[in-house]
Amino acid sequence: MKKEETRKGERSRKKLVDATASLMRRQGFHATGLAQIVSESGAPRGSLYFYFPGGKDDLAIAALEASSDAWRAQILTAVSAAADLNAAVDALLTTLADELEASGWVNGCPVATVALESPSEPVRQMISAHFDQWLAIARQLMAQFGIADDIAEQLAVVALSAIEGGLLLSRVKHSRAPLLAVGQALKAIAEPHLPKAKKKR
Amino acid sequence: MKKEETRKGERSRKKLVDATASLMRRQGFHATGLAQIVSESGAPRGSLYFYFPGGKDDLAIAALEASSDAWRAQILTAVSAAADLNAAVDALLTTLADELEASGWVNGCPVATVALESPSEPVRQMISAHFDQWLAIARQLMAQFGIADDIAEQLAVVALSAIEGGLLLSRVKHSRAPLLAVGQALKAIAEPHLPKAKKKR
Repeated sequence: MKKEETRKGERSRKKLVDATASLMRRQGFHATGLAQIVSESGAPRGSLYFYFPGGKDDLAIAALEASSDAWRAQILTAVSAAADLNAAVDALLTTLADELEASGWVNGCPVATVALESPSEPVRQMISAHFDQWLAIARQLMAQFGIADDIAEQLAVVALSAIEGGLLLSRVKHSRAPLLAVGQALKAIAEPHLPKAKKKR
Repeated sequence: MKKEETRKGERSRKKLVDATASLMRRQGFHATGLAQIVSESGAPRGSLYFYFPGGKDDLAIAALEASSDAWRAQILTAVSAAADLNAAVDALLTTLADELEASGWVNGCPVATVALESPSEPVRQMISAHFDQWLAIARQLMAQFGIADDIAEQLAVVALSAIEGGLLLSRVKHSRAPLLAVGQALKAIAEPHLPKAKKKR
């Protein structure tokens, strides 16, 4: 009985976190009210105060962490089958453009909106840490295809910047074109730093 | 007497627009309330309803237009003295990093926050039009230094995306490094498309 209640509680917690993540991705922190979160989540109102006694800031951090983790997993899945860096870049940008377009141009970066509008220092630090995780993925991917570490470090920052900006432009313009242009540019930037095919044994 | 009143009214209108632009740049649309706008602007409360009978949406559009125009002028000033494209890119990114840092890491892109959080279709169309104006500046700048139009069209989208994302990353990380890395990358992307110095007569 007790175990069953715990499991139900965990499901309610997860429903709240997922609803908050989805709402904050589409409309940001300030537009997302607790009443809307409870209503969209289908979780009992009491569970909100039980699991997030610190209120909206606590819930926002849990939601941003969950959606950042989910995005990272989605990106890793998208690029995992790629045979070379160009294929990985194409797979990534296509995945992002597909999701943005399928959502009616609202599902861009899961943390960017809150990053720009929240005055909370804990929220900023959490998002900064998640940017670092995404940069690490980009560096690993470049290392895997033979780009030197110091170059990969700079290119990762440029790639994340260009992708974040591409998501913003594509969202505002209701067009895949900015994201696809970013993909082409990232391949061109990386190309001179890839080991030459002819040198392969 | 009547003329004097009109001038006073125009000053009040401008105060409201400037305060709204500044607040929305730092904290976005939803966090910016009418009471805060009136209080920060120093304009009489009545002027808000007189000049913006449509309320916050009308005022937001006027403010975004004003801050986008001001940003465009600032960018044009920053790049106007540049002798080549590399110098223009350096001047632009340094200007943006300087302003962001001097503001305590809050003055990033004047329209990006609202672009991501506002559900208003007129606001989206206005921001889309302003992105087009910024893209036109980038294309003109590249044309001025000899980059072919079709290449410049693609590179402008990439440059705006990377700069927008660089502003986001630099803001969240409280660091000039992302913007400066974007500047280095933009110069590298443009380089193969510049007319060769040796070909000059």
